[in-house]
Amino acid sequence: MAEVGVMRVLLLFSSFYIFMYCANSAATDIELDAKAQFTHRIDSLNLLLYTFLLILTVLTIWLFKHRRFRFLHETGLAVIYGLIVGALIRYAGSKTPVLHMAVSPEKDSKYNLSLPPDTLWLRFPNRGGNPPLSNKTYAYAFREEIVDVEDNEMDLKATFDPEIFFNIILPPIIFHAGYSLKRKYFFRNLGAILTFALIGTTISSFVVGALMYGFTYLMPNLKGSFTFLDTLYFGALISSTDPLTILAIFNDLHVDVNLYALVFGESVLNDAVAIVLSGSIQNYGERYQSGTGGFETQAFFRALGDFFGIFTLSLLIGALMGCITAILTKFTHVRDFPLLESALFVLMSYSTFLIAEASELTGVVAVLFCGICQAHYTYNNLSPDSRSRTKKLFELLNFLAENFIFSYIGVSMFTFPKHHFDPGFILAGFFCAMLGRAVNIYPLSFILNLGRKPKIPLNFQHMLFFAGLRGAMSFALAIRNTVSDARQAMLTTTSLIVIVTVIVQGGATMQLLTWFKIPVGVDEEVEMLPYTGVRSEIADQTREGSAGSKLNDKAWLARIWGDFDVKYMKPFLTHARPTLLETLPVCCNPVARILTTTEQMTQENLSRSRVDSDSDLCIDENELSYGNQQRTSAQRSDSLIASGDLGLGSRFVDTRVRVPGPGGKDM
Amino acid sequence: MAEVGVMRVLLLFSSFYIFMYCANSAATDIELDAKAQFTHRIDSLNLLLYTFLLILTVLTIWLFKHRRFRFLHETGLAVIYGLIVGALIRYAGSKTPVLHMAVSPEKDSKYNLSLPPDTLWLRFPNRGGNPPLSNKTYAYAFREEIVDVEDNEMDLKATFDPEIFFNIILPPIIFHAGYSLKRKYFFRNLGAILTFALIGTTISSFVVGALMYGFTYLMPNLKGSFTFLDTLYFGALISSTDPLTILAIFNDLHVDVNLYALVFGESVLNDAVAIVLSGSIQNYGERYQSGTGGFETQAFFRALGDFFGIFTLSLLIGALMGCITAILTKFTHVRDFPLLESALFVLMSYSTFLIAEASELTGVVAVLFCGICQAHYTYNNLSPDSRSRTKKLFELLNFLAENFIFSYIGVSMFTFPKHHFDPGFILAGFFCAMLGRAVNIYPLSFILNLGRKPKIPLNFQHMLFFAGLRGAMSFALAIRNTVSDARQAMLTTTSLIVIVTVIVQGGATMQLLTWFKIPVGVDEEVEMLPYTGVRSEIADQTREGSAGSKLNDKAWLARIWGDFDVKYMKPFLTHARPTLLETLPVCCNPVARILTTTEQMTQENLSRSRVDSDSDLCIDENELSYGNQQRTSAQRSDSLIASGDLGLGSRFVDTRVRVPGPGGKDM
Repeated sequence: MAEVGVMRVLLLFSSFYIFMYCANSAATDIELDAKAQFTHRIDSLNLLLYTFLLILTVLTIWLFKHRRFRFLHETGLAVIYGLIVGALIRYAGSKTPVLHMAVSPEKDSKYNLSLPPDTLWLRFPNRGGNPPLSNKTYAYAFREEIVDVEDNEMDLKATFDPEIFFNIILPPIIFHAGYSLKRKYFFRNLGAILTFALIGTTISSFVVGALMYGFTYLMPNLKGSFTFLDTLYFGALISSTDPLTILAIFNDLHVDVNLYALVFGESVLNDAVAIVLSGSIQNYGERYQSGTGGFETQAFFRALGDFFGIFTLSLLIGALMGCITAILTKFTHVRDFPLLESALFVLMSYSTFLIAEASELTGVVAVLFCGICQAHYTYNNLSPDSRSRTKKLFELLNFLAENFIFSYIGVSMFTFPKHHFDPGFILAGFFCAMLGRAVNIYPLSFILNLGRKPKIPLNFQHMLFFAGLRGAMSFALAIRNTVSDARQAMLTTTSLIVIVTVIVQGGATMQLLTWFKIPVGVDEEVEMLPYTGVRSEIADQTREGSAGSKLNDKAWLARIWGDFDVKYMKPFLTHARPTLLETLPVCCNPVARILTTTEQMTQENLSRSRVDSDSDLCIDENELSYGNQQRTSAQRSDSLIASGDLGLGSRFVDTRVRVPGPGGKDM
Repeated sequence: MAEVGVMRVLLLFSSFYIFMYCANSAATDIELDAKAQFTHRIDSLNLLLYTFLLILTVLTIWLFKHRRFRFLHETGLAVIYGLIVGALIRYAGSKTPVLHMAVSPEKDSKYNLSLPPDTLWLRFPNRGGNPPLSNKTYAYAFREEIVDVEDNEMDLKATFDPEIFFNIILPPIIFHAGYSLKRKYFFRNLGAILTFALIGTTISSFVVGALMYGFTYLMPNLKGSFTFLDTLYFGALISSTDPLTILAIFNDLHVDVNLYALVFGESVLNDAVAIVLSGSIQNYGERYQSGTGGFETQAFFRALGDFFGIFTLSLLIGALMGCITAILTKFTHVRDFPLLESALFVLMSYSTFLIAEASELTGVVAVLFCGICQAHYTYNNLSPDSRSRTKKLFELLNFLAENFIFSYIGVSMFTFPKHHFDPGFILAGFFCAMLGRAVNIYPLSFILNLGRKPKIPLNFQHMLFFAGLRGAMSFALAIRNTVSDARQAMLTTTSLIVIVTVIVQGGATMQLLTWFKIPVGVDEEVEMLPYTGVRSEIADQTREGSAGSKLNDKAWLARIWGDFDVKYMKPFLTHARPTLLETLPVCCNPVARILTTTEQMTQENLSRSRVDSDSDLCIDENELSYGNQQRTSAQRSDSLIASGDLGLGSRFVDTRVRVPGPGGKDM
């Protein structure tokens, strides 16, 4: 690896440089400057390392795609390259010791708070020893509590502050998931998706948490080092899935859209559930610790309230900001200036994240629902330029962020100083993660099938089970807190589960599709679930009508919402017809007139805005009856670019794969 | 301002929260956690503040553009909003004191280096006082040397680490400048541009430096606090120009392309010159200080070597990385997967910056030349999707980065703690900045006109003089180092000069165009300089031939390069014809065959790649003789989108402005 060589040379050179400066103990300012330059160079090298890793990944994955080799997704490749480079850095890299010094408060210090201070002012006394440092004051900023005193080397560890994942890497990924969501199929399977994501993830978290607690209790070397809250936190973080690889292959091979929607929809929502759930568990733990210890039930219900409160408020903030963007783009003519419009779109979406974070809610959940609203409403108001610009921008950001995080998982496996390998815990982790996935999918599918006319067949259930790859969210949650040995063991186990599932399960997908006899090469409109052969409004109606009670409630809810959306939300927030003048009662006409634009009154805009956006709710009969042919083809090319494989495979698939049979013979 | 209110409420709430935790002095971990959350919320609020400012700017500028109000560019607006919000934060914001503590080295400390340590380990002794803190160790990271002990409040100052400008904000701006450069007109005026940028900026730096030193020497309150190096540094940073506003108006009104090229080209290059020059001055200062004081001449020549060495090496790294990207995109079929291709493009460009920074060169200069090469070579190899994606991506990044930096200039005027208002120095700064610009433009124009057949008329010279707005680069350089009072006074003066020039000179541009009788509404191909009426290959030949000796050298150099570029570089790096098989001697045929792609052999690709890229060197007769008509229209729409006003005004101009007369009557 050339970059490592370069780094070593630079490191050596820099150390020498600093050493030379130190030898000439004349002017501290210059040394400080050199030190700052050195730090900057180390930072640049760290970033450069990942940039090179990503370049390498891009080039290799191109080769794989070019040669139609589908066993390895780009994220799997990023992990593997990351592991290789991580090992090289660990075993071949030089180490620069950190210059540290033990200090104690000055004698006359009046500091008496229970918190450590934010900054320290280090004053060197005037008594010999360090002439250049005498009489100077240096500021030091608080970093962390030191638990393990042995770890005192800082250098090219190629690690970043874990908070970077939550504040920089995850938001574009999650926003893009919401923005590129195929809402039609998502809403058609809303009941099942919500069941798997909300109930399933919670069940999985508790099952994994309980089992892991049992395991740690039984294993002599771990006994006592894990609390139930610790293992429950592990359960929550390991219950979020990230089936990128599988979705990419589904997209390439045109697997049934409903299966795609189930896998994608569940993975998007369970990320949101997992992050809020783990936050609530942490809050519960803090309350429990700080209280008298007797308010367990109260704390539990407060955690429950936390969970629903934070989830709902984050969702609302996201949706609200999406709607505000829609209003801004509808009622101003900012679309005349596409660059301004795109900037507005990006800024509004980003501010959603910041607002949620600043109000102690979950920014990631907020951007998810913001993304969905932006796609559902705002997208229709955008100029063609902004549509393609925002779509392509987030596609690219998503691609870079995803591959960065997987490279990082690989590299940090070797370089992150806070790993704790415990074979027993790791094995238990693998087993429980699998079991947790199973108790999510199979029992819930059984219950769903009781009330679902187009049942989820067993082979789809198997595929859902195997689509339980772990990824970015699990890792980000695991690396967030690595204070205790227990947390470090959880990080190590999570990293390994991510790496193994991404590479092994990802690589086995093609084989599994064959084994489970899941049909590929399905046209988007010809779905595989039983009822789809006779797809029409009446068939849809029947399906909704004859569905069981539980699902029926959901469908009923979705129908109410769909109706409200078409009648009031879309006319208010987009240029869609019918206008509010038609749907609101006559008494509201003055208001309706203000809220209806001239574009909305003219007919031709209607068709355009409808055709370009994948914005149909499943129950939306008005839409189904109109322009279906036209929309279908527009949508297909649209969705090929916008989702799943991120458009990478589309050209390749279109030109060469002639609807391969279920055996995946084309490999 | 709603956001400030929200912030105050949140701040109060958070302080209360922390206070409550502190009162209950039980569990430090939880308090640390709450503290970290508080810090995160403050960070989010800081970012949110700027996001809101940018949203506000976007909406207002849309209104201005909609109403055809051209006195204020978006950057001017961003500054004004920034000033308002900065004042509000300063005079209405609450303050959270930083908890700080004075510490001294432990008695038995063996630390004896002349550098302050990287980290401090704070151990609370076990002697009463702080029971929750006893026996814990906390790590503190080095931040800075404290000069002004009074400033001990940290809170919503809405400030960032100055290094952010160099590592995050400037690179996309500069890359975009290179990527969107209209190379045809740039190269046609290369001689003048290089003269103004290289020689002019250096002259200006030294004149401003010397004059300012004189001023500070004469003013009793400043005498002795500025060294000549300080004022020279000020000269260098104030000599970089940033005429965004003027270029936007030029683009809107279709001012003569050569004037546009002169203003734009000079401003792009003088940024690069200013950053390297200021770096050399700083290095010189350090060497001078650390040495015995007697090696002034030696240090001076080393600084000179530094300047040329760093500039050239940075340029080479940038160009090399651009060429490598061209090779990668030419010889792989990565263009089949546009997302991969775009990712590769972005990653290669970003790694250019990192490589330069990691090798102690200037990343900003490297990305500038990388951008030029990417546009000149790589752009031709990209798929249409990647072309539009990269262009739009950098356009958007540039827009956001530019407006962010100008908002920041406004806000920090009030909130940055290290301002030092010295009326005398400020007045002197304004006067010298103006004079420095004058001694750059007028004498050099005179000398250039001696050897330039299409002379630079006096009204163009006036316009060049008035295009000396200061902007992002000056500010970033000024805020980088604010250790001493002198540096703080320089920051304040620079901020004020930026604000005043952007608002006043920017606002006066329309008026100035009238006063100087500069023709607007000029067709791109019908240039205003004398020779352009009879533009043809022969006219071009004549022009080149009859130019004076100095310019002739430049033209000769450009001709050599243009020839080499068309014969060897373009055939090697792009799919352009003639191929290397045709241009290389027969003996090299085997190599040439390897380096020539099949796409290159087929004729139809040729026209496409040539038409889409603004890649003509001025002396390139081969190109002029072919497809001129076609290229002209393609380029015009291209350049309207790609440069200057960032495409904001294009639609507006195209539809409404019917070539307004020089009086700017259309306002």
